[in-house]
Amino acid sequence: MQRPQAALRNGLAQGTAGVVASLRARAPRVHCITNDVAQNFTANVLLAAGAMPSMTLSPEEIGAFVAGAQALLVNLGTFDAKRREAASIAVATATHKHLPWVLDPVFVDRAPPRAAFALDLIRLGPSVVRLNHVEFFALSANEPSRDAILSFARSHRTVVALSGETDLVTDGERIAAIANGHPYMAKVTALGCAGSALLAACLAVEQDAFRAAVSALAIMGVAGELAGAGAAGPGSFAVGIVDALHGLNEATLVARAKVS
Amino acid sequence: MQRPQAALRNGLAQGTAGVVASLRARAPRVHCITNDVAQNFTANVLLAAGAMPSMTLSPEEIGAFVAGAQALLVNLGTFDAKRREAASIAVATATHKHLPWVLDPVFVDRAPPRAAFALDLIRLGPSVVRLNHVEFFALSANEPSRDAILSFARSHRTVVALSGETDLVTDGERIAAIANGHPYMAKVTALGCAGSALLAACLAVEQDAFRAAVSALAIMGVAGELAGAGAAGPGSFAVGIVDALHGLNEATLVARAKVS
Amino acid sequence: MQRPQAALRNGLAQGTAGVVASLRARAPRVHCITNDVAQNFTANVLLAAGAMPSMTLSPEEIGAFVAGAQALLVNLGTFDAKRREAASIAVATATHKHLPWVLDPVFVDRAPPRAAFALDLIRLGPSVVRLNHVEFFALSANEPSRDAILSFARSHRTVVALSGETDLVTDGERIAAIANGHPYMAKVTALGCAGSALLAACLAVEQDAFRAAVSALAIMGVAGELAGAGAAGPGSFAVGIVDALHGLNEATLVARAKVS
Repeated sequence: MQRPQAALRNGLAQGTAGVVASLRARAPRVHCITNDVAQNFTANVLLAAGAMPSMTLSPEEIGAFVAGAQALLVNLGTFDAKRREAASIAVATATHKHLPWVLDPVFVDRAPPRAAFALDLIRLGPSVVRLNHVEFFALSANEPSRDAILSFARSHRTVVALSGETDLVTDGERIAAIANGHPYMAKVTALGCAGSALLAACLAVEQDAFRAAVSALAIMGVAGELAGAGAAGPGSFAVGIVDALHGLNEATLVARAKVS
Repeated sequence: MQRPQAALRNGLAQGTAGVVASLRARAPRVHCITNDVAQNFTANVLLAAGAMPSMTLSPEEIGAFVAGAQALLVNLGTFDAKRREAASIAVATATHKHLPWVLDPVFVDRAPPRAAFALDLIRLGPSVVRLNHVEFFALSANEPSRDAILSFARSHRTVVALSGETDLVTDGERIAAIANGHPYMAKVTALGCAGSALLAACLAVEQDAFRAAVSALAIMGVAGELAGAGAAGPGSFAVGIVDALHGLNEATLVARAKVS
Repeated sequence: MQRPQAALRNGLAQGTAGVVASLRARAPRVHCITNDVAQNFTANVLLAAGAMPSMTLSPEEIGAFVAGAQALLVNLGTFDAKRREAASIAVATATHKHLPWVLDPVFVDRAPPRAAFALDLIRLGPSVVRLNHVEFFALSANEPSRDAILSFARSHRTVVALSGETDLVTDGERIAAIANGHPYMAKVTALGCAGSALLAACLAVEQDAFRAAVSALAIMGVAGELAGAGAAGPGSFAVGIVDALHGLNEATLVARAKVS
């Protein structure tokens, strides 16, 4: 059983380098419904990686913005009526246009209305659900074991990207672990949110949502390691990860990506 | 009369080091009602100091978020109907749960409705009111002399933390001056707002609100001095103060804190 | 015809240095209606250049804030009912008080309601319209040739500041090109928005709107070049341009400004 896994691993690391090249070549636009805290950092992360952000939430405009974008992010970090309406229009547009989209159900563990709204959105078929352990528990009532996330991905016909010390990605059949990253990543606000936006950008250039998710997590993790090496603390780390994403060398990425 | 003051000073500097250690050990969550401009920087300052931020404003959620937090910040920098409703729910929850909370009445000198709302909030018993000279004048109709702030603190049964070239803190009986800081602190937007959030975090780990306020101002001031030494301007200063807060050494803090 | 142009060029470069000195001496307050993504960076850019930001959008307050400011920015990047109402009150106040104001019609190329709203605002007489090539096309139905922008400025009795690889500024009679800048400027979100806020600050200290616009674009361009020289990527570039604006030396500015 080692062989196919090793082949998968090499293929995924190589694929990640290809995703980086495609982002730079094609500059996909990602429309982001995200929280107030994350907007600026998310835009800078997308720009550094080669993508283009747009962020309007107005109901009279968001349909047109999503229709012209290549991917969509729905992040529930700021959970207000404006964003709920925006999300409904945006997801309907993405579905109609066959655009990939990512759901990041931030803080669904904190308040039941968020969890209910997130489950409604999952029924609409996000390409990827990106969440952490407590958020997975809040949505599934299960601890995020390998079996539990495989089952969740299968039953909801989506890809689960579970962040943690080691990130896990599964489409219900394949499963990959990404062991890159740096402790400062937990010390910078909105880094996870920006990572989900990058995941949406990767979906715009890689049709296989499982591979796109693995790539996005590996890209952020490796950029984090590079930034961490030169940082004096979480402030310079947040600056450095933007620099690292912009300068990321494909060979470095293949060499450092710990995908298994 | 020198002796008690000297003892107070040493006690406060030592206490500040203890507060830093407690923030790192206990990672209190601070719910922040703050302005659009300040949200991201405030979250990063709290994370760097060891605390956890949350920032939702939705009326259907904020009660649950505050109930599970260890302290609350109410900053009036963005003064809109959404935040006024959020503040009412949040303060009621904090009062019910006996949580400490900080009022930062930003720009009450600019518009009478803010001043009226701030005075209503002061009647609800904030643990600390953090303000600058013009804001104090707008709320009290007095110049911020030592006598005036002592009297304000006594009559409103709160702690006043007055920022200026030298910061002053009083609970109506004790009074302390903190002479740390750096000129770039006035050149970075939201630094004062982030400082008030840090003050709320300190209240979560130090029950004596007077000592918590002295600690918070000393921590920000010393971090500012450390950041200023390595900064090429206010841009790198804003990055450096986050790094400095994260790396702050307790011995450095005791050695540098100018509390009297 | 070379002579007057050379004289204009020298005069504009010298004038730019004078504008920088005036910003630092007079610290004008600029009230900014701008988008969520840009607020924090815009405030830091204004502070670094010597100006003071204010950003409230509340209808009950914005009139008082604008009345006490020295210039106004109306940026359409976030296009919502709150900002439309804010813009109406703010522009009426600026007109009544004879304050200069800048219109930055962000993304008018993306959605017709923005373009219609922007044209309504242009009829109210902004001192300067700052836009890029696609935004100019969306508003004028013409490619932004020199003739087209001269004509637009004349017919709308405003100054056009067109950003591009080379920036162009015209009041319908005079025209200047500013060839400063750095490629990373396109990789930092809200840099253009912050530049328009700086333009508003320059209008507060230089009555000739044409000269103020040339100065603002030259200041940002030269600061960008200085920041670019020391940057490891767009993250450190965004930090460095704030440092560069703060430290900008008038002699360096005169030497480096490529105005023709």
